[in-house]
Amino acid sequence: MGRIKRIGVLTSGGDAPGMNAAIRAVVRTAIFNGCEAYGIFGGYQGLIEGDIKRLKSNDVSNIIQRGGTILKSARSMEFRTPEGRTKAAQMLAEHKIDALVVIGGDGSFTGAKLLIQEHDIPVVGIPGTIDNDLYGTDSTIGYDTAVNTAVEAVDKIKDTASAHNRLFFVEVMGRDAGFIALRTAIATGAEAVLVPEVETDLTDLEHFIEKDYNPKTSSGIVIVAEGEKSGGAYSIAEKVAQKHPEYDIRVSVLGHMQRGGSPSQFDRVLASQLGAAAVDALMDDQKSIMLGIMNKEIVHVPFNKTIKHTKNLNPELLNLVRILSI
Amino acid sequence: MGRIKRIGVLTSGGDAPGMNAAIRAVVRTAIFNGCEAYGIFGGYQGLIEGDIKRLKSNDVSNIIQRGGTILKSARSMEFRTPEGRTKAAQMLAEHKIDALVVIGGDGSFTGAKLLIQEHDIPVVGIPGTIDNDLYGTDSTIGYDTAVNTAVEAVDKIKDTASAHNRLFFVEVMGRDAGFIALRTAIATGAEAVLVPEVETDLTDLEHFIEKDYNPKTSSGIVIVAEGEKSGGAYSIAEKVAQKHPEYDIRVSVLGHMQRGGSPSQFDRVLASQLGAAAVDALMDDQKSIMLGIMNKEIVHVPFNKTIKHTKNLNPELLNLVRILSI
Amino acid sequence: MGRIKRIGVLTSGGDAPGMNAAIRAVVRTAIFNGCEAYGIFGGYQGLIEGDIKRLKSNDVSNIIQRGGTILKSARSMEFRTPEGRTKAAQMLAEHKIDALVVIGGDGSFTGAKLLIQEHDIPVVGIPGTIDNDLYGTDSTIGYDTAVNTAVEAVDKIKDTASAHNRLFFVEVMGRDAGFIALRTAIATGAEAVLVPEVETDLTDLEHFIEKDYNPKTSSGIVIVAEGEKSGGAYSIAEKVAQKHPEYDIRVSVLGHMQRGGSPSQFDRVLASQLGAAAVDALMDDQKSIMLGIMNKEIVHVPFNKTIKHTKNLNPELLNLVRILSI
Amino acid sequence: MGRIKRIGVLTSGGDAPGMNAAIRAVVRTAIFNGCEAYGIFGGYQGLIEGDIKRLKSNDVSNIIQRGGTILKSARSMEFRTPEGRTKAAQMLAEHKIDALVVIGGDGSFTGAKLLIQEHDIPVVGIPGTIDNDLYGTDSTIGYDTAVNTAVEAVDKIKDTASAHNRLFFVEVMGRDAGFIALRTAIATGAEAVLVPEVETDLTDLEHFIEKDYNPKTSSGIVIVAEGEKSGGAYSIAEKVAQKHPEYDIRVSVLGHMQRGGSPSQFDRVLASQLGAAAVDALMDDQKSIMLGIMNKEIVHVPFNKTIKHTKNLNPELLNLVRILSI
Repeated sequence: MGRIKRIGVLTSGGDAPGMNAAIRAVVRTAIFNGCEAYGIFGGYQGLIEGDIKRLKSNDVSNIIQRGGTILKSARSMEFRTPEGRTKAAQMLAEHKIDALVVIGGDGSFTGAKLLIQEHDIPVVGIPGTIDNDLYGTDSTIGYDTAVNTAVEAVDKIKDTASAHNRLFFVEVMGRDAGFIALRTAIATGAEAVLVPEVETDLTDLEHFIEKDYNPKTSSGIVIVAEGEKSGGAYSIAEKVAQKHPEYDIRVSVLGHMQRGGSPSQFDRVLASQLGAAAVDALMDDQKSIMLGIMNKEIVHVPFNKTIKHTKNLNPELLNLVRILSI
Repeated sequence: MGRIKRIGVLTSGGDAPGMNAAIRAVVRTAIFNGCEAYGIFGGYQGLIEGDIKRLKSNDVSNIIQRGGTILKSARSMEFRTPEGRTKAAQMLAEHKIDALVVIGGDGSFTGAKLLIQEHDIPVVGIPGTIDNDLYGTDSTIGYDTAVNTAVEAVDKIKDTASAHNRLFFVEVMGRDAGFIALRTAIATGAEAVLVPEVETDLTDLEHFIEKDYNPKTSSGIVIVAEGEKSGGAYSIAEKVAQKHPEYDIRVSVLGHMQRGGSPSQFDRVLASQLGAAAVDALMDDQKSIMLGIMNKEIVHVPFNKTIKHTKNLNPELLNLVRILSI
Repeated sequence: MGRIKRIGVLTSGGDAPGMNAAIRAVVRTAIFNGCEAYGIFGGYQGLIEGDIKRLKSNDVSNIIQRGGTILKSARSMEFRTPEGRTKAAQMLAEHKIDALVVIGGDGSFTGAKLLIQEHDIPVVGIPGTIDNDLYGTDSTIGYDTAVNTAVEAVDKIKDTASAHNRLFFVEVMGRDAGFIALRTAIATGAEAVLVPEVETDLTDLEHFIEKDYNPKTSSGIVIVAEGEKSGGAYSIAEKVAQKHPEYDIRVSVLGHMQRGGSPSQFDRVLASQLGAAAVDALMDDQKSIMLGIMNKEIVHVPFNKTIKHTKNLNPELLNLVRILSI
Repeated sequence: MGRIKRIGVLTSGGDAPGMNAAIRAVVRTAIFNGCEAYGIFGGYQGLIEGDIKRLKSNDVSNIIQRGGTILKSARSMEFRTPEGRTKAAQMLAEHKIDALVVIGGDGSFTGAKLLIQEHDIPVVGIPGTIDNDLYGTDSTIGYDTAVNTAVEAVDKIKDTASAHNRLFFVEVMGRDAGFIALRTAIATGAEAVLVPEVETDLTDLEHFIEKDYNPKTSSGIVIVAEGEKSGGAYSIAEKVAQKHPEYDIRVSVLGHMQRGGSPSQFDRVLASQLGAAAVDALMDDQKSIMLGIMNKEIVHVPFNKTIKHTKNLNPELLNLVRILSI
């Protein structure tokens, strides 16, 4: 393999705050290393359609603080087919792009793996998803910001919960993982947290609420992850309301705002580090790896590993919610 | 009527950011005028139950920046009965409270009016509600903050809408009035706004969206007030989706977070002015009036007027949404 | 004068949050009225140098929420000379720009007036300055945001002041006017406020601080406008420290951050209204006026008037600081 | 040593966001373990003076989101003397407090060590300082929030820098350490960062600025740590201005606002973990240790070690500032 001269970068899957910081780092580190950088717009679908533009240093000025992704993101059914990936490879060849950085999650890396296997294109990945559900990195880009956003929203909800002695069930994002829910619960002093990883014990929950919440004198917050298995925030709230008609219960689903917003310093720095490391890895002839951060060190994680394994919730944090709501 | 020596203050109805600033102003202006101030906890119900505590200057230190209300709020069925109001009057007599400041909305002032009529107690009102739907004041306490909160949330949603070329229907508070929706729409550059005051013309809306939104190249935001008459954000989104299955549509209901949060400077200053003016009005032997702000001047509005009349949306602002989304 | 077909827009003087919202409104309202819009980059200097670009609707997408100004701003010595203004007029002619919208302050409008007088070009102004020191409008674009920024910073300072029982002198912007200082003082519950419009009485201030601040038990905040006449925050702090060596005094100058940041909903809506009204005014053959807002109505204020007159601080608000810090 | 029944907690040194979350965790974990918790107000000085109050679970409700410290903090000259520490020990004995949790920095732990040595009182420490300059923990409580605060302020400054093509020197906190400066620089895309740990090479800096900043077309940001050795932000700015009178240079000192504000989710969770771990350590008969977090695990670090050793800046991050400002 000859020396890499043109590096493409795309964002794929759900967008996450900090993706722009990662794009900026990829572009500038590429230029720093004497390469040209190319932005691929609209994820894998944009790659197939050849929506590709050279990015100079100036093109990524003043984007580090912005949510979303200037490269946009999109799902691509076509890329899931061998024909789609062949078109993608042809587009890369047409633009003389030697290597690719993919910023996204699990699904994006699965696609990348196939592209590598079928067309021998060097691709490395950067973990960009608010859900933090990627094995091989302590944190994904966007996770810290998303939790801060959820926490700020729950802080506001607590104001009104407290004014009316209400019990709130607040649903946060996390279809398969409770990371956002768990940290949000601790950081807001919630009474309880319900996550996909742990079966919801309704009797236990009611017991716990009865101890902590009194509609005459106190308020309460229960954080529910989107992917909670027993039916979600509305369903649980209804069950609790049936048993306790005297409770003043409300439900709030925080929704898509958790995906946006100016990234936190943590996500900006992490994205900058991983973006630079991704280009370094390509220059060192690496491929089929995700760049991650473990114990403050940049690590290389084979796509195979990060796709196959699941990251677990910290059981001590789960326990902490309970102790601190005493 | 002798000189007023003890002034009670309570918050009633839905809480609003800035209520604490108003409480602080009432307490300190009372003290400044040589009176004692008493906090009544839990609205009219707390008054009936005698949940009353003297408040000194220190008790309202460091609350001006906090959302919610330190006096809490609650609905009271009992206060709607003559017997309930008689109990309330007795409690005031028992605590030698000569006059009352009620911070709340329409319903709270209706209750206050009856208390005045039946028991000849001087009561004045301060408009505290995020909905801004009170006649006789340009702005209610909490409205500016609530719109800022909604706008910041929609800003975040726009990040992700833009990354995926999505069309979002965002529901904001306002059961009877579109004030929050209208300003949020203008301030976020939304494509359209749907409010309770104007019948929703679905054909027109679809027409408008077709012109502005393209799932291949652009995103879109439609702001829907909670009290929109044709069925709300979810129902409208569904209808648009049926006609345009190619649209990538999402719905987000901002919910109760709009009630909380640290008040904006505008709401803090307004609350401080109205709180001080309420005490001044009582010292000047006024009663049965709401203190409002019109054209930057403090005004006295008879409860009768503010209860009977409705404040209208500014038609020019409605028009502006349309012009600026060109 | 024939019908206007091309409208130019520039920002001049110190930048203010909401300028981008005003630019967007000018551009889109121009297009709505069948005109073309042209952005002039770098204020009057950019006009002289012909740094002019057509702006379409898309060019002002997604800027309503951004601080700063996409058109940039700059001082121009050259424009103060007749020769400079002649060049400017030639550039407008060259680009067939029929009319001009200037977003800025006092100085910018003085320049505009001369351009009108000497070259008969229709120019209207939009008040964009954080200082709010423009006669003829209740509020200038950027003022509300700047006060919110100052208030949020002082809230943070209060946390640490309170933890250490410190007395803080906080300097906010306002070289000639105390508007920002006054509202910041009320909104943060400051002990005192010092503004350019009122001579500082040091004895009175010390007296007041002695009453309110106790280094063993309480903290204190004094807000000082940049243009305070007796020497500014540092000098006053030093004098107080000399008399009271037992005080734990700190000074903080908030500085340029007050100019930036995402505009508040108020500034975005105001800017949108004034931007649209500016184009409407040009279409109605108006010139040499500033668009302002008075009592919630859009008003036309001759440049002459807004330049000659000074807006006064509300004396009741000055008084309120004192009452509420009791 | 018998079983611990009463645990005291105090905050000492400069306050930091998250201290309240740590206090809450100490109090509630103590109660969870069957102990009583006592708040000591005003740091070591308050301990000497016996300013001590029992804290129940309710007393720490709704403080997790607040900046500052409800226990206040103060310097104590008296505690630096053996006599002072003897008084402190007597006060603890008087209140039957068996063990102590000290939340603070280096200096606070030095005092704690002497109290342990001289009076055999079990004391453990929690790292609470925005500066992050404590050996033995990856992060101190307050650091993440302080960097976020600095970053948000610089984001605002960038708006105005960019509008006027200015070069800003922004001074952030960090008398002995450049942690805040370094992360702020990366997260804001600054052109350069100057820290106490690295000697400032003015020629190199000027060279770098010349390459990156052009007063006609671009803006620039240089982040300077408070403790930078060559004279600080103002002095460096002056030197650069002398060499480049054509530069439009401004200086902004962010100051004490960096100490306050609602803590980030990271600091709240960290503080909750460390507060709980501190009580656990005491229950396990530990003393003279700081609780820290290393590689996401709670660690016990002997006071001796954390006092003697210095934590180093990450040289890769220093390098990253340079690469990414290309």
